[in-house]
Amino acid sequence: MEKILSVIPLGGVEEIGLNMTAFEYENDMIIVDAGLMFPEEDMLGVDFVIPDFSYLIENKDKVKGIILTHGHEDHTGALPFLLKEIDVPVYGTPLTLGLVKEKLKEHSREDATLISVRPRDIINLGGFSVEFVRVTHSIVDGVGLGINTPIGRIVHTGDFKLDPTPVDGQLMDFHKFSEYGEEGTLLLLSDSTNAEKGGFTFSEKEVRRAFEDIFSKAKGRIIIASFASNIHRIQQAIDVAVKFGKKVILCGKSIVSNAQIALDLGYLQIPRETWLRLEDLKNLDDKEVVIITTGSQGEPMSVLSRISTDEHKHIKIKGGDTVVLSAKMIPGNERSIGRIINHLFRRGANVIYEKVSEVHVSGHASKEELKLILNMVRPKYFMPIHGEYRHLVYHSILADKVGIPKENIFILENGEILEIAEEGARKNGRINSGRIFIDGKGIGDVEDMVLRDRRRLAHDGIVLIMIAVEKLTGRLVSGPDIISRGFIFEDASPELISDVSNLVSDTLKSLDKEIMSDSSLVKAKIRTVLKKYLRNTMERSPMIVPIIFEV
Amino acid sequence: MEKILSVIPLGGVEEIGLNMTAFEYENDMIIVDAGLMFPEEDMLGVDFVIPDFSYLIENKDKVKGIILTHGHEDHTGALPFLLKEIDVPVYGTPLTLGLVKEKLKEHSREDATLISVRPRDIINLGGFSVEFVRVTHSIVDGVGLGINTPIGRIVHTGDFKLDPTPVDGQLMDFHKFSEYGEEGTLLLLSDSTNAEKGGFTFSEKEVRRAFEDIFSKAKGRIIIASFASNIHRIQQAIDVAVKFGKKVILCGKSIVSNAQIALDLGYLQIPRETWLRLEDLKNLDDKEVVIITTGSQGEPMSVLSRISTDEHKHIKIKGGDTVVLSAKMIPGNERSIGRIINHLFRRGANVIYEKVSEVHVSGHASKEELKLILNMVRPKYFMPIHGEYRHLVYHSILADKVGIPKENIFILENGEILEIAEEGARKNGRINSGRIFIDGKGIGDVEDMVLRDRRRLAHDGIVLIMIAVEKLTGRLVSGPDIISRGFIFEDASPELISDVSNLVSDTLKSLDKEIMSDSSLVKAKIRTVLKKYLRNTMERSPMIVPIIFEV
Repeated sequence: MEKILSVIPLGGVEEIGLNMTAFEYENDMIIVDAGLMFPEEDMLGVDFVIPDFSYLIENKDKVKGIILTHGHEDHTGALPFLLKEIDVPVYGTPLTLGLVKEKLKEHSREDATLISVRPRDIINLGGFSVEFVRVTHSIVDGVGLGINTPIGRIVHTGDFKLDPTPVDGQLMDFHKFSEYGEEGTLLLLSDSTNAEKGGFTFSEKEVRRAFEDIFSKAKGRIIIASFASNIHRIQQAIDVAVKFGKKVILCGKSIVSNAQIALDLGYLQIPRETWLRLEDLKNLDDKEVVIITTGSQGEPMSVLSRISTDEHKHIKIKGGDTVVLSAKMIPGNERSIGRIINHLFRRGANVIYEKVSEVHVSGHASKEELKLILNMVRPKYFMPIHGEYRHLVYHSILADKVGIPKENIFILENGEILEIAEEGARKNGRINSGRIFIDGKGIGDVEDMVLRDRRRLAHDGIVLIMIAVEKLTGRLVSGPDIISRGFIFEDASPELISDVSNLVSDTLKSLDKEIMSDSSLVKAKIRTVLKKYLRNTMERSPMIVPIIFEV
Repeated sequence: MEKILSVIPLGGVEEIGLNMTAFEYENDMIIVDAGLMFPEEDMLGVDFVIPDFSYLIENKDKVKGIILTHGHEDHTGALPFLLKEIDVPVYGTPLTLGLVKEKLKEHSREDATLISVRPRDIINLGGFSVEFVRVTHSIVDGVGLGINTPIGRIVHTGDFKLDPTPVDGQLMDFHKFSEYGEEGTLLLLSDSTNAEKGGFTFSEKEVRRAFEDIFSKAKGRIIIASFASNIHRIQQAIDVAVKFGKKVILCGKSIVSNAQIALDLGYLQIPRETWLRLEDLKNLDDKEVVIITTGSQGEPMSVLSRISTDEHKHIKIKGGDTVVLSAKMIPGNERSIGRIINHLFRRGANVIYEKVSEVHVSGHASKEELKLILNMVRPKYFMPIHGEYRHLVYHSILADKVGIPKENIFILENGEILEIAEEGARKNGRINSGRIFIDGKGIGDVEDMVLRDRRRLAHDGIVLIMIAVEKLTGRLVSGPDIISRGFIFEDASPELISDVSNLVSDTLKSLDKEIMSDSSLVKAKIRTVLKKYLRNTMERSPMIVPIIFEV
């Protein structure tokens, strides 16, 4: 019988985020990453999104383990939900598991089996053996994977860039990737996030130069906002603070928690005398103060957001403060970030951000790096991952350029199956897949119809028309009464409300007794008449909900 | 008596867009620009925003004229609304007025007095005389202004960049700006849009190089999307099409209308044999076809958007097509633009956009250009305009660098008054100002409360609780019935609906007769109980509307 390996992306090939891939061979399956995705602007009220992994649940007896490449939420955020359904060991490097442990605690899944691995460790999972390979990225302790399968080796880069001067001196394991190339690799899956970008991504260390420049010019306190998981960014801020003889205060739950995990595991160094508490702020000279916090994306409840509008208890902006947003302005967040910058400037701070200074570098490989990895690994087949379709296309163009035959490049959609046998590879069918919306404590109860309703409500609001009719005769005994929300300001528009009321009254009067006694017909009639009226007079289409009481 | 000139921005100093400034001296007032702004993401359902110009209406007898610097909607879009209230002449260059005429037609204000001017023309408006000065920008026929007032000259740049090689060869009028500097200028108002950007903005002509590269490599049809008002971009696409022996089809109402206006006025040149109609598409060889259209911002009803999802009647994407998005990805639109790019790639097109090629340049001056204008005009006072607060701050830093004393630099908010007298200048008070939301045909009937409701509805939907009680006894005679919209999918969550219903029933049973007969108390009670319940069980806060029928 033909030996077939199936590679199935459950997320991460139609979007940035949601990264998750299954590898299946006969009765064994391993899962690489289990990420979430932050909602797009039309997913109203949704907190985050996870992949539909019903296929994994149906095949839970096959699943031998879950492997995490690094600790970012777009690679680990769906794990608590997955572990509720499938109880298998989770493999990752110490920092990755340290961060995951915190999340599992919140979901009361402290009992999960977490197995710590180091780069170059090899684990066996059924018919698979997986080697961990160090990569450099915007979070420490990231790895790529060499996955040995019965029909050949698969290399998975995880998220990476080729940082020539990493902050901790731990280079990407070029030797391993080259060895995989030398020995022969069947399939490469590689990070496409920056496949549109030319050149080489700058080293994380370049940010240090910007920090030194800012620190040397700052007249008062310095506040730096970044991602709580970007340990090297935090390390650099601390290092520069030490160099300038300043004290560091970490402010915000997630940054304190992540820093503590990284400290405990030895990934972060803070001299004891440098790290102070928020309570010490009042005893420090402004020139001594460096506050490191979160909120670089304009998140409304973050420390930075509260500082910017004077709602933070302990930190009030004053003239002489310097605020640094040391992070990418993620598309979709730019306007809220802009608002925070404006607020901070208004309060007298000097605000420095990606657009005006080199205070951020990306964690993902640009075109030249992507071509280098392709050339090192020299895979037979190539599958771009971690990106929207356009990123995968641009990554494919690079693969084509370095000599991978077009017919050996596979762009998959979530749920599609890439089958690889010794004779060749092909897309063959798909599994059930999709996106599950998480809203509050609800998992998957916000369906497309609910989102459609929310979009409609968001756009033009809702109008309720209430009438009471006599059940037997269909006679109107009360109403119409009108309530609206998100439609118009009723107090300011009494004429409109009375016009609507009259229109409904006249409509009801025109209906004969038979129709009046069928409330679904009456509702339909009210909806039609009112919809037309509001569209013609106001060019608006609120949701119209007629409510009929039969008495 | 002291002679005082008041400069009052009504919009454009707290946002990108909404540009409008009033200049007032004794009994004379002139207005420069009357722009709209596109809604921010939390202005749900709002089509666009115009400035609150009630101050102008109150002082309409003073207003001597409205001056337009160029034809972009963020400088002219509020004009139809203003002209409904104030009937004064409007001054602008031919293309500006050509575009404005179209808009006025839509608002049935064809009778407005539009007076065409040319660069270096001088008009007298009460105590003011205004000279028009050519600038280069991303729309042709833009001007800055030299405004002579009884106490000195004010220079207003309009929107501009210093394009050294404009497509039409018409350079910015450096001589006039320098002359204003030489003769002495009291106040400069200058465009801050790109004050965060270092260096020099590229010439519009640089885009031609990218077009030539794309045209030379294209294997099939070429579709270029840009702004309908960017006549020079359209001209360059046409020029390159002619060079490569291709035919041009303009597709979309606004682009055809704008091109026709520009053609009639001599601002656009298309060889007769090059311009074909959409109907000719079927007779052309793919290699001959260049389609120019709109939709570069991902607007859902645009030609490009419809093409990208196969909903366009005449244009279906096929392998070999090249699609060029020749425009900035405006923050807030990036995700919808990304979606269109993905759709186009999926259908086989090669898609080229700002991130991957030099197919767009900005129309606004960067730091070096801003310093040059400041050095040419050498004003006594400086007021940065056209930007959010952060842009104005960065522009002020430039002014400070080139030697304008800090105390002579004024950052105003909308509605604030800058008073200039011979003795000095100072901020002094403010007029009524603000933003008016336009939603459909409604002007200003969408107030903050309506928007708050829409945000709430968008986030968690609405739950209606309907009960009927006997008026006299307060006895519950029917219900509770539950209807929700945008909350959960009811069919999938019958337990929740029945839990809510039981909770309301139990609550009502616990109320004594006196409370039950007061419907406002009953409503408040239902709201409180249900709010708490939904927050605890689901972490959601839908709008809760109890409806009580008294029978």
